[in-house]
Amino acid sequence: MIETPYLLFLGDAPDPLAAKVAQGIKDWRPDNCVGQFRMDGCKADMKLPDMTLAEAKEAGAKTLVIGVANRGGKISAAWKEVLLEALDLGYDLAAGLHTLLRNERDLAEKARETGRALHDVRIPEVEYPIANGEKRRGKRVLAVGTDCSVGKMYTALALDRDMKAAGMKSSFRATGQTGILITGEGVPLDAVVADFMAGSIEWLTPDNDDDHWDVIEGQGSLFHVSYSGVTLALVHGGQPDALILCHEPTRTHMRGLPGYALPSLEALRDTALELARVANPNCQVIGIAVNTAGLDDSEAEAYLHQVQDRMGLPAVDPYRHGTQPLVEALQKL
Amino acid sequence: MIETPYLLFLGDAPDPLAAKVAQGIKDWRPDNCVGQFRMDGCKADMKLPDMTLAEAKEAGAKTLVIGVANRGGKISAAWKEVLLEALDLGYDLAAGLHTLLRNERDLAEKARETGRALHDVRIPEVEYPIANGEKRRGKRVLAVGTDCSVGKMYTALALDRDMKAAGMKSSFRATGQTGILITGEGVPLDAVVADFMAGSIEWLTPDNDDDHWDVIEGQGSLFHVSYSGVTLALVHGGQPDALILCHEPTRTHMRGLPGYALPSLEALRDTALELARVANPNCQVIGIAVNTAGLDDSEAEAYLHQVQDRMGLPAVDPYRHGTQPLVEALQKL
Repeated sequence: MIETPYLLFLGDAPDPLAAKVAQGIKDWRPDNCVGQFRMDGCKADMKLPDMTLAEAKEAGAKTLVIGVANRGGKISAAWKEVLLEALDLGYDLAAGLHTLLRNERDLAEKARETGRALHDVRIPEVEYPIANGEKRRGKRVLAVGTDCSVGKMYTALALDRDMKAAGMKSSFRATGQTGILITGEGVPLDAVVADFMAGSIEWLTPDNDDDHWDVIEGQGSLFHVSYSGVTLALVHGGQPDALILCHEPTRTHMRGLPGYALPSLEALRDTALELARVANPNCQVIGIAVNTAGLDDSEAEAYLHQVQDRMGLPAVDPYRHGTQPLVEALQKL
Repeated sequence: MIETPYLLFLGDAPDPLAAKVAQGIKDWRPDNCVGQFRMDGCKADMKLPDMTLAEAKEAGAKTLVIGVANRGGKISAAWKEVLLEALDLGYDLAAGLHTLLRNERDLAEKARETGRALHDVRIPEVEYPIANGEKRRGKRVLAVGTDCSVGKMYTALALDRDMKAAGMKSSFRATGQTGILITGEGVPLDAVVADFMAGSIEWLTPDNDDDHWDVIEGQGSLFHVSYSGVTLALVHGGQPDALILCHEPTRTHMRGLPGYALPSLEALRDTALELARVANPNCQVIGIAVNTAGLDDSEAEAYLHQVQDRMGLPAVDPYRHGTQPLVEALQKL
């Protein structure tokens, strides 16, 4: 659990895309951010107040979150200076970098000296149990994809936002590093040891109020041979009551796997539902979320109509149109 | 990779069952064993020559394999004495205990001093890649179960034996600790980090002769919510050309999951085949292996006949009858 609120460290981001983690935090949890910290030459801007470490501390910031990718896989001397000063000022540090904070000797020593925490969100901080399959109270919805990187996290965050706006009880449950930095907690599922994957998801989505929804961030795809095992652990550990199918219609092959075609939405529906019903016999597919970024407005509308007719389910682009029809479908369950 | 041949350490086994790892090695790879080492009060006997450490070393033994479970989860002082002496004499040590050899300070120090290896086969020793899904040469058969612990390892070992006897090129590919100790190599799949599960199985079953079969040890079950993700990684990383369905007909619920019924063989066939064809569109289900230990001879025969008629596939108990019909089905592929 990462202490909030944050000061977002944008470093010397060479372009806005390098700071997409910071952008995610700003977009989805603006209340978690007191400001941004930018170095000379930073080309990213979250439209948050620029603050020094001391100013942000004064404003209540607890954790300096590295919201930017490091260049060349190394934490530079210029970054180091800021991070060490932050520890001295009483900040915890959090990052999802491949380079682990804890493996930088000077940071590790300073954190020990100052009693501060280094959160490397790629690494589990919890000993998860083996899944026991017991039915838990409360409701759960999971986004599953025809492929990796088709908008599952975005869909879950948008759904959580729209459900809260509709007065429903809802919690976004992060299962990847960006999601964990956004909310301050979650399970870095791709780094969990095989035997404990499903158990980590049971741990993440415990008993809750009968009318509470966990909106579980999906990972991978049942049809992506590199990561399908991770996805099935989510389907079985999450015991979803509802599935949302996620798709990107211009993808020509599975991400990183030339020669592997994407499954149809029908195949995803049938396979995911059959497997999900092992853990929850009442599971339903309630709608479809399409990432239409590759289509213009009229193409997107035509595509969504066609999918909706073909599948007999509401189909939306959460980014373009929000998730209202999916929220309504969940309310009816 | 564990150096063979072995001296099997049976310690002070309180009963034969405690030494089932040693029994597996003796049954399946007798040529890997020069003898057994027993302490006072040992109640297990592999019917191998009893040898001192020095005698077995003389006879060529390279590794002392702990083939017995330790009582109370601790490595006793009496064991320790033998293990330390073995390191001094030039043995490597190998074990699949929950207590890791490497975490025992005296063993770790002695191994460092003597330059010997401590193999804890529950822990991966390799940095596996992420699966790339590329088609590999050679053929692969995988055992999948309606549940955990229904005879998948036994089926694979028996199949490997019978294929070799029929003059086929075959390699048993271990994916669990007992299998790894039996063959001296393999992947401890349940201990691999989620993102690398499928890649570890690609690594385990690389390009090979066109007429060579990898016989891959199965793990878990697609229908066992605690471990299904591990199983799917095997199905997708293994790219099997052939599946064998494994079943235990007297099981009343999924192992460790009261309230979860076993799937039918039909459901396992359909689900496993659909998922397997994502990685290998030519995959076939070629037969059924039933663990009939809970049935008497005539019940077993009647059950196998009934399954064979119902499924239109050869059905055998590998322990009672060998795997000849499965070998023939693989030869026809």
